[in-house]
Amino acid sequence: MNETLLEISTDEFYMREALKLARRAMEEGEVPIGALLVCNNQMIAKAYNQTEKLTDTTAHAEIIGITSASEYLGAKFLNQCTMYVTLEPCMMCAGAIKWSRISRLVIGAMDEKEGFISKYDAVGVLHPKTLVTHGILANESAQLLREFFMSKRNGKG
Amino acid sequence: MNETLLEISTDEFYMREALKLARRAMEEGEVPIGALLVCNNQMIAKAYNQTEKLTDTTAHAEIIGITSASEYLGAKFLNQCTMYVTLEPCMMCAGAIKWSRISRLVIGAMDEKEGFISKYDAVGVLHPKTLVTHGILANESAQLLREFFMSKRNGKG
Repeated sequence: MNETLLEISTDEFYMREALKLARRAMEEGEVPIGALLVCNNQMIAKAYNQTEKLTDTTAHAEIIGITSASEYLGAKFLNQCTMYVTLEPCMMCAGAIKWSRISRLVIGAMDEKEGFISKYDAVGVLHPKTLVTHGILANESAQLLREFFMSKRNGKG
Repeated sequence: MNETLLEISTDEFYMREALKLARRAMEEGEVPIGALLVCNNQMIAKAYNQTEKLTDTTAHAEIIGITSASEYLGAKFLNQCTMYVTLEPCMMCAGAIKWSRISRLVIGAMDEKEGFISKYDAVGVLHPKTLVTHGILANESAQLLREFFMSKRNGKG
């Protein structure tokens, strides 16, 4: 297996873990978005959207994940870490990813309504050294979000 | 006193409170930035930058202030609240202010290096109903930041 293929299969592996976190959010009545931080092939922080449970609009998966990873490492900067997130980050989270200096950001589905690239064309907000990959298991993530909003509309959420 | 004058004097009063919080940050070795949330003329959340103490790049005054105000009110949305912040918010905090639907944002000094308006020209990131005022005690805030960075450079910080 060459290096690119290996990276894709690793990305898919970790994105599946992030999708499990998104599903957990959905089970708890939250918009299903998960974020996973990986450092030296170790999953050091698992987070999912908790804005409803915590009554806090800042409790996005990415923010909780960064706080948790910094707590675990005892370090402010996460420049050895990759973040896997099932949906494209919003501007708030893109700003947080910039401050944390995450080395690589791997995105599932893109978000035309709120995404920092798709809506705001603001990839320049990130730290210049942060690499971005997107489209990893995008359909699975988008399908989960569709299910969630459909169940909300049908009053089952 | 007409309404505009009354608003300016109220803004100065609350911004002085926010500056006290910024000074507390400085005393603790943090970049001196304070944020105060006011709802129905009551100060409901006081916060200052704590990125060093909490080892967390997301621990900006504005984020802590929003979390704290939501906790106090038991409400996700802060559309009855004004945020006073001594320095122009960064993109992360502007995104957080958008999600929280704060009704009014009052800024002290502008921040050409990281400000969401000054650097990114991104006032559109905020919720369309959020009103923005800036320049309230701007010199006092800028002077505090200069003192902080000068003491850091001189190895006294």
